[in-house]
Amino acid sequence: MSTYKAPLSDIRFVLFDLLGAEQEYARLGHTDATRDVLDAVLDEAARFTETVLAPLNDVGDRIGCKFDQDTGAVTTPPGFKQAYAQFVEGGWTGLVSPLEFGGQGLPYSAGVPLKEMIDAANLAWGNFPLLSHGATDALLHHGEDWQREVFLKPLVDGRWTGTMCLTEPHCGTDLGLIKTKAVPNADGTYAISGTKIFITAGEHDMADNIIHLVLAKLPDAPAGSRGISLFIVPKHQVARDGTIGAANAVRCGSIEHKMGIHGSATCVMNFDGAQGYLIGQPNKGLMAMFTMMNTARLGVGVQGLGLSDRAWQNALRYSRERLQSRSLSGAKFPDKPADPIIVQPDVRRMLLTCKALVEGGRALSYFAGLQVDVSERAPTPEEREQADALVGFLTPIVKACLTEWGIECTYQALQCFGGHGYIAEHGMEQLARDARITTLYEGTTGIQALDLLGRKILQLQGAGLKTFLAMVTRFCDAESGNEAAAELIGPLREKVAQWQQLTLQVGQRAMANPEEVGAASYDYLMYSGYVALAYFWARSAAAAHASAYSDAFKQAKLETARFYFARILPRTLTHAAAIASDAGTLTRLDESAFDA
Amino acid sequence: MSTYKAPLSDIRFVLFDLLGAEQEYARLGHTDATRDVLDAVLDEAARFTETVLAPLNDVGDRIGCKFDQDTGAVTTPPGFKQAYAQFVEGGWTGLVSPLEFGGQGLPYSAGVPLKEMIDAANLAWGNFPLLSHGATDALLHHGEDWQREVFLKPLVDGRWTGTMCLTEPHCGTDLGLIKTKAVPNADGTYAISGTKIFITAGEHDMADNIIHLVLAKLPDAPAGSRGISLFIVPKHQVARDGTIGAANAVRCGSIEHKMGIHGSATCVMNFDGAQGYLIGQPNKGLMAMFTMMNTARLGVGVQGLGLSDRAWQNALRYSRERLQSRSLSGAKFPDKPADPIIVQPDVRRMLLTCKALVEGGRALSYFAGLQVDVSERAPTPEEREQADALVGFLTPIVKACLTEWGIECTYQALQCFGGHGYIAEHGMEQLARDARITTLYEGTTGIQALDLLGRKILQLQGAGLKTFLAMVTRFCDAESGNEAAAELIGPLREKVAQWQQLTLQVGQRAMANPEEVGAASYDYLMYSGYVALAYFWARSAAAAHASAYSDAFKQAKLETARFYFARILPRTLTHAAAIASDAGTLTRLDESAFDA
Repeated sequence: MSTYKAPLSDIRFVLFDLLGAEQEYARLGHTDATRDVLDAVLDEAARFTETVLAPLNDVGDRIGCKFDQDTGAVTTPPGFKQAYAQFVEGGWTGLVSPLEFGGQGLPYSAGVPLKEMIDAANLAWGNFPLLSHGATDALLHHGEDWQREVFLKPLVDGRWTGTMCLTEPHCGTDLGLIKTKAVPNADGTYAISGTKIFITAGEHDMADNIIHLVLAKLPDAPAGSRGISLFIVPKHQVARDGTIGAANAVRCGSIEHKMGIHGSATCVMNFDGAQGYLIGQPNKGLMAMFTMMNTARLGVGVQGLGLSDRAWQNALRYSRERLQSRSLSGAKFPDKPADPIIVQPDVRRMLLTCKALVEGGRALSYFAGLQVDVSERAPTPEEREQADALVGFLTPIVKACLTEWGIECTYQALQCFGGHGYIAEHGMEQLARDARITTLYEGTTGIQALDLLGRKILQLQGAGLKTFLAMVTRFCDAESGNEAAAELIGPLREKVAQWQQLTLQVGQRAMANPEEVGAASYDYLMYSGYVALAYFWARSAAAAHASAYSDAFKQAKLETARFYFARILPRTLTHAAAIASDAGTLTRLDESAFDA
Repeated sequence: MSTYKAPLSDIRFVLFDLLGAEQEYARLGHTDATRDVLDAVLDEAARFTETVLAPLNDVGDRIGCKFDQDTGAVTTPPGFKQAYAQFVEGGWTGLVSPLEFGGQGLPYSAGVPLKEMIDAANLAWGNFPLLSHGATDALLHHGEDWQREVFLKPLVDGRWTGTMCLTEPHCGTDLGLIKTKAVPNADGTYAISGTKIFITAGEHDMADNIIHLVLAKLPDAPAGSRGISLFIVPKHQVARDGTIGAANAVRCGSIEHKMGIHGSATCVMNFDGAQGYLIGQPNKGLMAMFTMMNTARLGVGVQGLGLSDRAWQNALRYSRERLQSRSLSGAKFPDKPADPIIVQPDVRRMLLTCKALVEGGRALSYFAGLQVDVSERAPTPEEREQADALVGFLTPIVKACLTEWGIECTYQALQCFGGHGYIAEHGMEQLARDARITTLYEGTTGIQALDLLGRKILQLQGAGLKTFLAMVTRFCDAESGNEAAAELIGPLREKVAQWQQLTLQVGQRAMANPEEVGAASYDYLMYSGYVALAYFWARSAAAAHASAYSDAFKQAKLETARFYFARILPRTLTHAAAIASDAGTLTRLDESAFDA
């Protein structure tokens, strides 16, 4: 089995030393989010995830969720339900939800480390509370008063959980194709009928009720994505006064057999005239859904981070313990039968790759989380707007890059184990299987890439990118004399210039041929992720130098930053070359000739 | 379930048009290996793998091998045993084995397409006959006459199978640490005692006997890797006259629960004074073992190729069928509710990546296979020696790169399916899980990298590399006027020059600091693989142009070559940058500071 220890030291470094969250929260009026409170939350979150969730990760994988064909019931793996009860009991479900609905009102970004720890400890389990956040956000932003009153409180306190019912068998990415119907009833409710698939936590035994947020089409809806509405469809009917009624006409038809996250119930949900309430405006469901999806996307990015961290922790431990061969420059531990494999430069390459992507990814995702808070609370509308653009710009990067890196880190960490990594008992292969979902759900990497380049850069004139690059340039100007970061500043400036240039080039080509957007999008996305991480690594080296952390910690940050610039950042060369090549290399080959 | 159709058209193109195997076999005195014979073998191999093996791939994964703790017996998945009987019946086990031992005497390289088809159809099943080849090779090259007589014939005709018993719980890569003992008996046999792990096909129900080739230490053996001997240890005792005796004191203790290849029995083998025969010289077992391992390594590379091919075939089919969204430049199929996703440039990027790596990898591995034949049969010792150096140089590249690309292709192909790729019923996730073993067994990618740079390049003065680069340069000189390849020649020449320069640089740095070898080895290996593939892609474009294949085929080769040069070959930029950075970026960080 793999083990997990919450990386509190680095979490605190990122939150407080790198991002200055304490001062920022005070500035944003989050007066309750003091350092003392946050420290206590982090300690308690570490304790809960390490001792309650992490030990259930293995059993969740081996036993998985069970489905009863006769009743449509889903039984979660042994211990999952009890762990959820403890989670609710501890008040964790409402950590960042508004006080007025029973939450604890902490900033959004204060919840990100909790999410990282949950996902590292037990990704499959984490999917049950995760989906409630999307439902909570949709209700907060688009619900009527009575809907918020009736549905939000039990979601926030965790008695109920939520789902997002989007995908249907014939449509995932292209939601304009959905067939689920919503027919108005005389009492103002709607009768929802259709089949949704891939519904995470669609049915389970942890909560008293499950609130499905369902995309469906009204009888007179326009065709395509402009004719989609969003509905609240509870598992047990709920009246406008909050009274619980009969079982609703919604039932789990089966659960999927998946590569991983066996402890997470992925359900086919059949709606057969189920009673639902419209949320938001008719035919404006996609907009409400995007509210749910943006936070879910940041959340999935953090899943990649959590899995990467757990994988690399275990690879580091194993590389220190496993004795095999000698160092290339002579025995380092002559008293042992062989040296630990961590003396091998190639093992260090894999370990440092993980360390660089994990700690850099933590800085990037926590920063994005902090911008969510700024976008909601900054004193001026200009600052809120700018932060909002930053969040929009960073969301596809965090989602796609941290999950791609999650696949890479679980790969590299498993590889450090050699053949033992392939055996179930070490737990490394589970992490790799679990990680594989993260580049698929909530929009594949390709969809994130189109969102970044097509929408956030080209359609929105790159407001987020401009803000981001201005910040990087300010950092370069300020820190060029900093002995811990100076050597990184020059290469970082070069990348900023290249990023601007590549963006301009792609923009010009896209005006002539829209296929250029799709042809460049993936490489543009990854390029962006690697340059963003270079910035956070330079900033980390500088912040560590200025911190009260140990010399070993400072050395580790500086050397990992150097490693990143020397051996990971050059991936941008490949991506830049691909961006520079035109769409023809992808579009010229006739579809029928692929297997001529 | 995923499907499989043997890519006979491209297999024939590579074998006959690209490599000119027919003429080459004639020149090497393989007079039986005519085009007619080879065509019939390919057709029959396709039929067998498509109709017998491929349908068992899913059940092999779902049911797997079963172990009986009471008897130590292993039961293979339903249908596996019958398929093996058909395989034996068809004479496939001895396809490339010498006529004098009952084989069909075809060239080694004529067996590579069969191996590709087997691995694509059913990798787990393919591991049962695979290990016999290693045993066969070891016996052929190191066995005494009576050993060849008694053991080789039943291995060649498939009544018996073989294993390689190397790894022990505490040692895999570092075989100098093994503890298994061989004590001489009065009758000239040895009593073998010890525990071996990760023994593929160590126990099963397919064959009458299992011949274990076991590394063990004689009582007076020198310490470390110079004191290892190789022994023949049959499951049922075999006398020198071939008489079958009692059950030997070797027993399967358990089978591993693995991420994939569930149909392949990975056994813990306990030897408890089992009767064994020494093969080869005392204390020279590692040399004999390398004989087994080199062909096994080429074989594992081909496993990566087979899995990649199956994955990409299915991704192509799905991308043509799945209707979702519209082309970025307007509806391509306005009569359908949406366009097939293959119109999306980013989907094409994934498909073309697979196509380029699969077809390029096929050319590379078949070429390496042909060099095995040249090394054995060429008319002059100089040519045999040169081919032998080429095989040694190409083996780690084929093994490591084709398996790394196997992981990439199964990743990309699964990604084309979106969320559906994560669901067991489509079979894509099985391919990804099965592929994950290939970069681990028979030496991890890191070990292949050290073999390439440390041994084949630096210790052996790069004889194989020089021969290879001379061949590439001859090709560039000859084809610079070829309209189908001319545009690729310039970039290829640049890479040849860069490869030479990087090799020189690393060699110089390694003389000053041996850690530089380990620090550069992985990136040097991947760099080599990408440049080698560029050569085979340029050669493929030229060979297709000169062939009698359809215009669509020629276009596909040329456009895929262009894609490769524009979007995959630039990965060499990243690897070259990493090679250029010194070992310090990996070695400076103190071991204890990784998690400071």
